[in-house]
Amino acid sequence: MIEEFFKKNRELISRQLEIFLSIKGKELGGVPWGKEVSARLLSFSLGGKMIRGGLVLLAYDVFGGKNKQEAIRAACAVELLESSLLIHDDIIDKDYLRRGERSIFADYGENLGICFGDIGFFLAYEILPHGLREIFSKKSIEVGLGQMQDIYLSFSKKSIDEKDILEVYLYKTASYSCSLPLMMGAALAGRDQKTVLKMEELGKYLGVIFQIKDDELGLFGEEKEIGKAVGGDIREGKKTLYYLYLFERASGADLKRLKDVFGNKKIAKADILYVREMVKKLGVDKEINKKLGFYEKKAERLIGNEKLFKELLGLSLKRKR
Amino acid sequence: MIEEFFKKNRELISRQLEIFLSIKGKELGGVPWGKEVSARLLSFSLGGKMIRGGLVLLAYDVFGGKNKQEAIRAACAVELLESSLLIHDDIIDKDYLRRGERSIFADYGENLGICFGDIGFFLAYEILPHGLREIFSKKSIEVGLGQMQDIYLSFSKKSIDEKDILEVYLYKTASYSCSLPLMMGAALAGRDQKTVLKMEELGKYLGVIFQIKDDELGLFGEEKEIGKAVGGDIREGKKTLYYLYLFERASGADLKRLKDVFGNKKIAKADILYVREMVKKLGVDKEINKKLGFYEKKAERLIGNEKLFKELLGLSLKRKR
Repeated sequence: MIEEFFKKNRELISRQLEIFLSIKGKELGGVPWGKEVSARLLSFSLGGKMIRGGLVLLAYDVFGGKNKQEAIRAACAVELLESSLLIHDDIIDKDYLRRGERSIFADYGENLGICFGDIGFFLAYEILPHGLREIFSKKSIEVGLGQMQDIYLSFSKKSIDEKDILEVYLYKTASYSCSLPLMMGAALAGRDQKTVLKMEELGKYLGVIFQIKDDELGLFGEEKEIGKAVGGDIREGKKTLYYLYLFERASGADLKRLKDVFGNKKIAKADILYVREMVKKLGVDKEINKKLGFYEKKAERLIGNEKLFKELLGLSLKRKR
Repeated sequence: MIEEFFKKNRELISRQLEIFLSIKGKELGGVPWGKEVSARLLSFSLGGKMIRGGLVLLAYDVFGGKNKQEAIRAACAVELLESSLLIHDDIIDKDYLRRGERSIFADYGENLGICFGDIGFFLAYEILPHGLREIFSKKSIEVGLGQMQDIYLSFSKKSIDEKDILEVYLYKTASYSCSLPLMMGAALAGRDQKTVLKMEELGKYLGVIFQIKDDELGLFGEEKEIGKAVGGDIREGKKTLYYLYLFERASGADLKRLKDVFGNKKIAKADILYVREMVKKLGVDKEINKKLGFYEKKAERLIGNEKLFKELLGLSLKRKR
């Protein structure tokens, strides 16, 4: 089962991260903050589901890679990239809760938090196997640009359409969450450029599905399952497909209330329940499912009969956390 | 002359940065922000003195490197690292002026600024020649930690001694400003580990001298020469050797006024002139010169008869900008 695969590999990645970051902690023992930053980056990274690292190993397996140790190091690099992006993301969004714990922003503030993230990036490159650097940089740059667009859309007055939102999903999420690890696994297993590019494309579809499900969980999930505050996307007025479809379909008093609720830091639980109700009442959930079906078909065409990828697609559509 | 050397190589590094970042701008043309970020990182980087990039080429020359093109790419990586660190530094210090222009923080704010810096780091690693990654990451991590200690000392209540201040100079400045480029030049020219470590040590002494001169220029220089607001370190209450020696030596009304002035955002030109006067009256300038002489001796011992390094040391002690 694919859940078993991720669980087993999460263990392997965790062990490697422990080894790497405790060696770094010792090396940096004489530098102020050296031990503390290594230890916190380790505990923060260990708190992740390690789906991205797992995807490196999954693609590596599918393409018959033989040097598992190297693939695990690649997985660690992706996990450290992810941790660092989240650390900066929490500063940008002023999020106090992450992975079920106080965020690094909450504990250290913005300025030290910026440094935490920067150091995490440098560590990611240190453990990254040679030969993956170009892919790694290319996709990381896309995430940074996608993050900028996400920030921009959150304060811009321009009217936002589906293309804007999907662009953010593609660059901010799919690029490093799915395309990058799948490309790394394929490249590390010695596959040619064509296969690597096919993985990039598959990653796009899986990544968009992943993000839509993430939006759904942010709206309908429970805090203890998702490890962050429920309704955070509503409070931030985040431009998700849910947001877009709700505003396209609502009218009258409902439209007015939705406008009051989205982007309002002080909403109550009842407001979140109201948004949930509107999602159903206005058929937004059906529209979202149609979208998911569209990307599912695209992914299926690329996957063919590859069993692990098929299971992965299934999992990404039914995940609850 | 060494000034000529830096000037000529600044041209070469600039050309390479232009090529690299305009290619990236095209590659990223389809991604939101891709063109804009590439262009701004280019113009920002071109505004630097490129001392760090120049140092890579200087060490490469000294050690007889033969592939200048590769050394120029390494120099570009250091310059992009420097740009990105400064971008984050300006967010941390809320600095509106950098390299004589509005800072990226001033133009884009904190959140987009964080992404600008992150993307700069990824670009630095993309252009970095293979084989330098370990040195590059190691020193970059030290900068991040040094930056954290600098931030910490700025708000900490603990009494600060010379060791604390020199530690920040060593990690926040010397590590990437001098040790890293000298190590890169030596490693790229094929020198052994022993030579690379000697360059690390030389970089420490040069870097501390560089930082002390930077503090001096921040206090006594003119805005149009140094490209940032004069007295910024006083307004921030930055823990420099000047700060330490002033507070160790002042008493009575002077101590009271210095306490009022340091860390006060609203000081006038007269307050800066007063600090300058106190530096002389209390003999802080002589104490600083003794310190510079100490590091000069240490550097001289390592340099021996190497002409370019001797000139470099001379330049670092007499620079006016």
